[in-house]
Amino acid sequence: MADASWAESAVALKGVVLDMCGVLYDSGEGGGAPIPGSVEAVKRLKASDLKLRFCTNETQATREKFVAKLQRMGFDISVSEVFSPAPAAVAVLKERGLRPHLLVYDGVVPEFDGLDKSNPNCVVIGDAAEKFTYDNLNDAFRVLMGLEKPLLFSLGKGRYYKETDGLKLDVGVYMKALEYACDLEAEVIGKPSLAFFQGVLDNMGIQPHEALMIGDDLVNDVGGAQHCGMKGVQVRTGKYRPSDEQHPAVTADGTVDDLARAVDMILHQRKL
Amino acid sequence: MADASWAESAVALKGVVLDMCGVLYDSGEGGGAPIPGSVEAVKRLKASDLKLRFCTNETQATREKFVAKLQRMGFDISVSEVFSPAPAAVAVLKERGLRPHLLVYDGVVPEFDGLDKSNPNCVVIGDAAEKFTYDNLNDAFRVLMGLEKPLLFSLGKGRYYKETDGLKLDVGVYMKALEYACDLEAEVIGKPSLAFFQGVLDNMGIQPHEALMIGDDLVNDVGGAQHCGMKGVQVRTGKYRPSDEQHPAVTADGTVDDLARAVDMILHQRKL
Repeated sequence: MADASWAESAVALKGVVLDMCGVLYDSGEGGGAPIPGSVEAVKRLKASDLKLRFCTNETQATREKFVAKLQRMGFDISVSEVFSPAPAAVAVLKERGLRPHLLVYDGVVPEFDGLDKSNPNCVVIGDAAEKFTYDNLNDAFRVLMGLEKPLLFSLGKGRYYKETDGLKLDVGVYMKALEYACDLEAEVIGKPSLAFFQGVLDNMGIQPHEALMIGDDLVNDVGGAQHCGMKGVQVRTGKYRPSDEQHPAVTADGTVDDLARAVDMILHQRKL
Repeated sequence: MADASWAESAVALKGVVLDMCGVLYDSGEGGGAPIPGSVEAVKRLKASDLKLRFCTNETQATREKFVAKLQRMGFDISVSEVFSPAPAAVAVLKERGLRPHLLVYDGVVPEFDGLDKSNPNCVVIGDAAEKFTYDNLNDAFRVLMGLEKPLLFSLGKGRYYKETDGLKLDVGVYMKALEYACDLEAEVIGKPSLAFFQGVLDNMGIQPHEALMIGDDLVNDVGGAQHCGMKGVQVRTGKYRPSDEQHPAVTADGTVDDLARAVDMILHQRKL
């Protein structure tokens, strides 16, 4: 079993990176609900000698508001421990002198406050949800088609996520739509991009082989982390589907029922 | 020049197939407007010994209403001469005993009246335009994800078309979105599918090499027709863009300013 071997290697770990939606909580009406055992699991990790970071592709709110929501659910978490695509995108846009046309959820717009958005020379899309109307997508398309060198940034490339009332389309679906419409390839900021994972490791001051990623998204969490040299474990919560365990391209180092169980296994191994 | 050679071979033609939007007329507010010279060009083709058919990926109205609009613009055209994806899709669904979930423009819904749409076992998308809301696309996604063997039909796979007020995203963009979301490949009904072009040729009773397609869409009109063994000429109206003339995959047999000029060249050659 793969499960046994990843846990055995937990002795050598120096840090753990946790995906958030689908691992800590399920999103949905009223902000969502914590997944049973996850609040306690985070506490236990924090009490251990492991470094801990949170890595999300959440782009519906500013990092501050998002973290405040998790705190209200009972999680011991602070803004500086959370890595999300919008602040990473702002850094890239500033560095390259780009003026974005934004197609993002209203809640995340303040992250982009410091940028010039007049006469845009690129498009940035996030998980805009209901804001992905035909007219808004068409506006983004026309901006791209009007540029000599169309440039599209996508905050993640997830296919879908799970809310309390069912599966919802994620930003990757609209990234593919605009890629096809404009015959281009988007630059992805967030998971599973190598630069995004590397930024988290740099912040922890550890090497990829010393880190474990735990997520519900096989391709973006597990596959992305593995591509970066980390171990990747999938939990059977959130958007997990049984078919993930026979995925043609990505095989998790382990698959466990939930975060609480994963933390049990890691901490048990380190006590032996 | 390619232009010269396609016109020279016009002597051997037995039939012409015309794309409609962007060749006969530009769509837009109030139903659109005829492209100068096109009404007359259709008249001249009809007066010749060439067979004539119209082949459109239009899926915003029933064929009857669509043809009535063209007649009001002055075109000599009848329903039996027009091939469009919705009636072709209905035939496929009936033959295979499928019950569709429809994500199409309201105007085309009556084409599907005779089909059982309860407990759907496939999804059909057309150029739904403003009906491509996040919620509607999510509904179609959830139907597909709920099927043991997800089955998506797309009425065409165009990237965009031109209305009087600018470029608009076409159904192919949303096909790609759902393909990515569900990790599947859609079945395309309409141009550029081989079966669709072959159906038009069968109706005309002629062979592919005896037929010429004239369209504004390099990939779906010209490329599709060429793939079927027909000649394909692009007009510089509708969604034509100069970069089409250096397309990496499709080279038109000829490129002419508009339908009037194409018909001039064909009929002039046949009189020599």
